[in-house]
Amino acid sequence: MKVLVLGGDGFCGWPTSLHLSAKGHDVKIVDNFARRNADVELEVSSLTPISPMGSRLAAWNVLTGREIGFERFDVAENYHRLLTLIKEWQPDAVVHFAEQRAAPYSMKSSWHKRYTVSNNLNATNNLLAALVEAECDAHVVHLGTMGVYGYGTAGVKIPEGYLRIQVPTDDGTVVESEILYPPNPGSIYHLTKTQDQLFFAYYNKNDGVRVTDLHQGIVWGTQTTETRLDERLINRFDYDGDYGTVLNRFLMQAAVKYPLTVHGSGGQTRAFIHIQDTVRCIELAIENPPAAGERVQVFNQMTETHRLIDLAQIVSRLTGAEIDHIENPRNEADSNDLFVENRQLIELGLEPILLEDTLMEEVTEIAGKYADRVDLSKIEARSLWRKKS
Amino acid sequence: MKVLVLGGDGFCGWPTSLHLSAKGHDVKIVDNFARRNADVELEVSSLTPISPMGSRLAAWNVLTGREIGFERFDVAENYHRLLTLIKEWQPDAVVHFAEQRAAPYSMKSSWHKRYTVSNNLNATNNLLAALVEAECDAHVVHLGTMGVYGYGTAGVKIPEGYLRIQVPTDDGTVVESEILYPPNPGSIYHLTKTQDQLFFAYYNKNDGVRVTDLHQGIVWGTQTTETRLDERLINRFDYDGDYGTVLNRFLMQAAVKYPLTVHGSGGQTRAFIHIQDTVRCIELAIENPPAAGERVQVFNQMTETHRLIDLAQIVSRLTGAEIDHIENPRNEADSNDLFVENRQLIELGLEPILLEDTLMEEVTEIAGKYADRVDLSKIEARSLWRKKS
Repeated sequence: MKVLVLGGDGFCGWPTSLHLSAKGHDVKIVDNFARRNADVELEVSSLTPISPMGSRLAAWNVLTGREIGFERFDVAENYHRLLTLIKEWQPDAVVHFAEQRAAPYSMKSSWHKRYTVSNNLNATNNLLAALVEAECDAHVVHLGTMGVYGYGTAGVKIPEGYLRIQVPTDDGTVVESEILYPPNPGSIYHLTKTQDQLFFAYYNKNDGVRVTDLHQGIVWGTQTTETRLDERLINRFDYDGDYGTVLNRFLMQAAVKYPLTVHGSGGQTRAFIHIQDTVRCIELAIENPPAAGERVQVFNQMTETHRLIDLAQIVSRLTGAEIDHIENPRNEADSNDLFVENRQLIELGLEPILLEDTLMEEVTEIAGKYADRVDLSKIEARSLWRKKS
Repeated sequence: MKVLVLGGDGFCGWPTSLHLSAKGHDVKIVDNFARRNADVELEVSSLTPISPMGSRLAAWNVLTGREIGFERFDVAENYHRLLTLIKEWQPDAVVHFAEQRAAPYSMKSSWHKRYTVSNNLNATNNLLAALVEAECDAHVVHLGTMGVYGYGTAGVKIPEGYLRIQVPTDDGTVVESEILYPPNPGSIYHLTKTQDQLFFAYYNKNDGVRVTDLHQGIVWGTQTTETRLDERLINRFDYDGDYGTVLNRFLMQAAVKYPLTVHGSGGQTRAFIHIQDTVRCIELAIENPPAAGERVQVFNQMTETHRLIDLAQIVSRLTGAEIDHIENPRNEADSNDLFVENRQLIELGLEPILLEDTLMEEVTEIAGKYADRVDLSKIEARSLWRKKS
């Protein structure tokens, strides 16, 4: 299959591109290096020494004999280049990672709010408009987030995208209906993903665009089978307060003997998935597109849930690190339950990698090995959801 | 009250600005003349001879002694100018009309889809981000559309913004909840208004921004008490296939002895409001802001519903015009019911102007009087919702 990967240089995009290439797909990456440029802006670097795109692709070709194509441009700004690429190459699937993906980054300032909104929404709309204009029936596989759901309704397991409801009518009877799960985003970043859902529903209804929206949990881990082949293929590992996700931050903090920073009580429960499972899920999504005329297909792309304090305790047990409770910069509940339906990807063949089984590998392979590259001053989370009063 | 009117040169924005000024508010308009520029692009003109902004404001000042301020810039593109204006002027209310407002225009081509999305979403986000950054507690009054609801659920009167639902839980009980009415937009334009709702809900929740969202029906009529004072104040009247709304198009068609073009059977039922009631509703909204900490307030800003074929028959009866059924370029149901709750604005004091009572004035005052300015070639609706196969 010809697969276009928008945002194929990023933390999920790069290992996905390699995985799909390894599985025999013909892969072409589009990326504007927005993620590398954010490192420049934030004065941080991946803990792992990631290679430039040219070296990455050359190494992959030498190691496997396979070629991955690459075009550098901004999907949100350069509509005509995207349109031409789609018209000429006629991909079978487009994996859409071309969005600013960090909640804290989206809350840093008005500029960051505005960049996240304009980039994410225009990128999604450009892709959909281009597919319609090019009359290309490619299946869109979009990386959404569990965050579109908020933290669910008490007593109701979060379904995969759609909620069955009952609406009392004026004559006293009740109408059954199934709706897109009512959105409850926790940041500007999450907001854009709820707005993306409306784009997908509309273009699906009006133009028949086939879409799978993957509501992904927090990704942990760094390497996949393919990125492990050679250091030039290594995946990025972010530990800073903006792009570092919670578990990777704990691991790195442990490696450098910094206390694990838990926001508030740590009672916040979140959904997680290993990066190796992410790339497998995307492969499964590509192989199982919705039929023509079918509504947007939504999978919950997560494998387990944990309270943040429990995660900190696991890491503490493995490494001896201390735990430090700090004031929560986010505007969120101090604790919550989270029950999530994730049957569809499991039924398609996903075999989850469990955190307790492989976390120690991360500690030694990544956090320990590259600990000398850390900049301790970048650990603190500085983005505030609201001004302090 | 100091009221900033974004998009204050347009069909609703101009009479609103005059009305608020007449009522004693201190009004400042921001507009980038996007609507006048669309006339240039589409090679059409308002049937009524609208004056340039300078003449409009000078005439208003001479006639009433009141001053309306004006700044020309693009709210979606010039964030810093908007921020500075809000910081320095500290408005009490901001009326937000600064969006591309025609469904057919939004469907003309990929460019029009992309312009509508980028303009409307960035304008709304810029306004909200600027209020937060400026620490300005102005009440945002936004012009939404009845189109966010789609055409409702059988047997359920469309509520004002929020729907009470019941969700069956895993243990067999039922949880009651109230959600934003599930969106079902019928065009890219309507889509952006459903995405706007998510902006408002988020900034309201996270930052306490006070918002009233007015879900307006199709506006008919041209003049208000203030625009009637002098021909230099006249409001625009659009009859073309993109910006002309259905009733105004019928009136103009009748005036020039062109058959009334009904799309499909005409069984489509829509909600309507007279422009004089629009400006009154906005005044009522400004005078009745939500309290601090209250969720987004939603009013259905419409006064009556009609089937399009019934409207055509009323106009035909008044004028003798013939009715012509043509193929529907839109992707919509051929007929629908529509029951809409609109109690809140009525309770605040709105006294609806009814269509049957004053339609004849429009026929003589506007359509008849300016019929010699018509360009017959612009009557046909050319935007297709989907390519013909």
